[in-house]
This record gives sequence, structure tokens and C-alpha cells, in this order.
Amino acid sequence: MTTLAGKTHLSQGIREAIAILAGDGLLTEAFRLMANRPAIDHSSCDDAVVLDLINEVAHAAGVLGMVGGQVVDIESEGKAVDLPTLQYIHTHKTGAMILASVRVGAKLGGAKKPILKALTRYGESLGLAFQIADDCPECRRTGRLNGQTGRKRPGQGKSHLSFRVGSRGVEIRSRELVEMAGEALKSLGPEADPLREIARFVIAREY
Amino acid sequence: MTTLAGKTHLSQGIREAIAILAGDGLLTEAFRLMANRPAIDHSSCDDAVVLDLINEVAHAAGVLGMVGGQVVDIESEGKAVDLPTLQYIHTHKTGAMILASVRVGAKLGGAKKPILKALTRYGESLGLAFQIADDCPECRRTGRLNGQTGRKRPGQGKSHLSFRVGSRGVEIRSRELVEMAGEALKSLGPEADPLREIARFVIAREY
Repeated sequence: MTTLAGKTHLSQGIREAIAILAGDGLLTEAFRLMANRPAIDHSSCDDAVVLDLINEVAHAAGVLGMVGGQVVDIESEGKAVDLPTLQYIHTHKTGAMILASVRVGAKLGGAKKPILKALTRYGESLGLAFQIADDCPECRRTGRLNGQTGRKRPGQGKSHLSFRVGSRGVEIRSRELVEMAGEALKSLGPEADPLREIARFVIAREY
Repeated sequence: MTTLAGKTHLSQGIREAIAILAGDGLLTEAFRLMANRPAIDHSSCDDAVVLDLINEVAHAAGVLGMVGGQVVDIESEGKAVDLPTLQYIHTHKTGAMILASVRVGAKLGGAKKPILKALTRYGESLGLAFQIADDCPECRRTGRLNGQTGRKRPGQGKSHLSFRVGSRGVEIRSRELVEMAGEALKSLGPEADPLREIARFVIAREY
């Protein structure tokens, strides 16, 4: 059978088609793995929990989450957008998937309602902090958030909070959000330390 | 919030990005709906069955099914490919999803093993018949399979069985497969008549 291995002269159109199919394949594979009871040990939780987790991930990844955020982000390129739109992009584009990661882990671990609620608040703050810092072209250029000169990435004409409040404003907002994330974990003991570490990493990492 | 509604002057790049995201959104939404117990009445079947169905659909749609078939189809464009490759494309590209539709319906209806086996053979033959007839450029051009002049579609340089056996060969093979599909249903009564009708429709429809 013919395969792609070793082919170096594929046309641009074919490369794009294969890239799109790779995305479709990986997206579908995630759901196959989650549902694939014989392949993955679900013995520690009910089938109903696994269905709930699939629903949670699909909600976060699809039109109500990441895809929706990405669409609004794309159509906002090169335009002045209002704050609610910006908030929508930030909470949906990556924020929804970060929140889902936290909630899925909590549910798999059998977290009861109060802990799930606390971890949800943590995930929301963390996701928003990550997205506004990650998207900030000014912060990437100046390395503002960690005091270092950042790796330059090409500007994409994206709308961003820094256009409204400046990179200093983004820095303040990110730190606020990371503090809120830590605050949400207050009722949890040292077993939540890795989560606290992740929250600090979000604004301390190099851009 | 900004929306796409009423926008007619989107750039080609944005249109393509939105089209890809629409695909990602719909693909994800399918899994969300299947897993979304409160929204869909799953009361007639166990959670374990629903998980099995999600796995079945993901297997058929992903790299082991439709996406895999599509990749091999794309990389075979404009080339002479061997029969095993052609068979792979035909059984995976659309065939896998047709088979999954049949099997998911059967499982939801509580089909026991012998009936599921019969319906699987039906679905395999039907899927293959559909795909080789649907892909046949010669057949579309001449309306060979239904004796009518078909609607022309632009040729895409795709590999096809008709290049090896001619449109008459495709016609014979399609009819054979539809007969095999009917044969697979032999043990079932008149309640399988709609399935028999669908099998006939696959080669009788206008191209």
C-alpha cells in the first residue's frame, strides 16, 4: 500500500489536506480512547462517570468552547473589539480546555461537590490567566511578565487586552487571576501544591 | 459581541479557517450529543452500550476508518494504485461510516450476536457498493449505473476501480455487492425491508 513515509515533494494543497485530516484524526482518537473500555482501565469509575467526562471534554472543545472561541478570535482579527468579546475569546479559546482538564481529573479522582466547585474556580482563573498572558503580543515582545526578553513570534493582528490596558495592565490582571486561582484552593491541603505550582508557572514561564 | 452574521466580505483565508472550525465543531458535537445523557434519552440502554457506540463511531470516523481512507485517497491522486490500496480506500472512506451506522442502530435496538453479524455483513457490502459507485467518474459521466445521463462533476484525478475494470466492471461489482447485502439479510423478516430498499437505492440513485 502506498504511504506518506519518505515523501518530500507533496504539494501545498496535499500538505494542507493531510494537516486538516491529522487534526480530525487526533480529535476523534481522543473520544475513541475515552470510550474504549477494554483499552483503558475504567474499573475505578462507573460508565456514567466516563460518559460525563466525554461530555465535559466535548463541551469544552466544541462550538460551546474552544472552537467557538477560535471562531470569534478569527473574525475579530485586525479589529477593535469590545471587552465582552475579548472576555469570550479568552475564556473559550484555551480557557475552556484548561478548565475541562482540571474538572475531568477531579471527577476521575472522585471529588465531591465542594471540592469540584473549588477546583472549577481554580480552573477558570488559571485558564483565563494563561490565555490573556499567552495571547499578549506586547508581553511576548518585551518579556514583560517574567522580566526577560521574550522569544519573538510574528504578530497576527489579534485583538488583545493589552491594546486596552497595556502590557502592564495585562501583567496586573494575570497576577490577580493567579492569586484568585490560589485562593480557590485554600480549603485544600498540601496535596494541591502541584496545582499551586502550575498556577505560578503560567505567568512565570518564558514567552 | 461581534458575529459572522451578515458578513459578506470575509477573506479567503478566514473562510477556510471558519470551514475547518465548522468541521471540528460538528465532529465534536456528535460525540457531545452521544455522551450527553441528560439531553438524550438513553434509558432504553445501559451506559456501557452508549460507550460502546461512541467507540464504534470514533473508530469508523478516525484514523482507523474514514480519516485513514481519506488520507490514502488523497495521496493516491493522479497515480496508478494497486487493488489492495483501492480496496482500502473504498472500505474506509465512506464504507466504515455506513457500516457504523448499521451497527449502531442494531446495537441500540438490542440486536443479539447472530443478527449483529448478519447486519455487519450487510453494512460492509452496502458501504463498499456505495463507495465504488459514488467515486466512479466514468459512471457519473455516463450515468451508467442507472441508465441515465448523470450530473457532471469535475474529475479530481482520483484512483478508481473503473480505471482497472471499466464502468461496466464497476456496474457488475456494485450489483454483486448489493446482492450480497440482500443475501446477508436472508435470515431477517419483512422488518428488514427498509434495509433492502436502501441497498437497491445505492445503485439506482441518480449520479
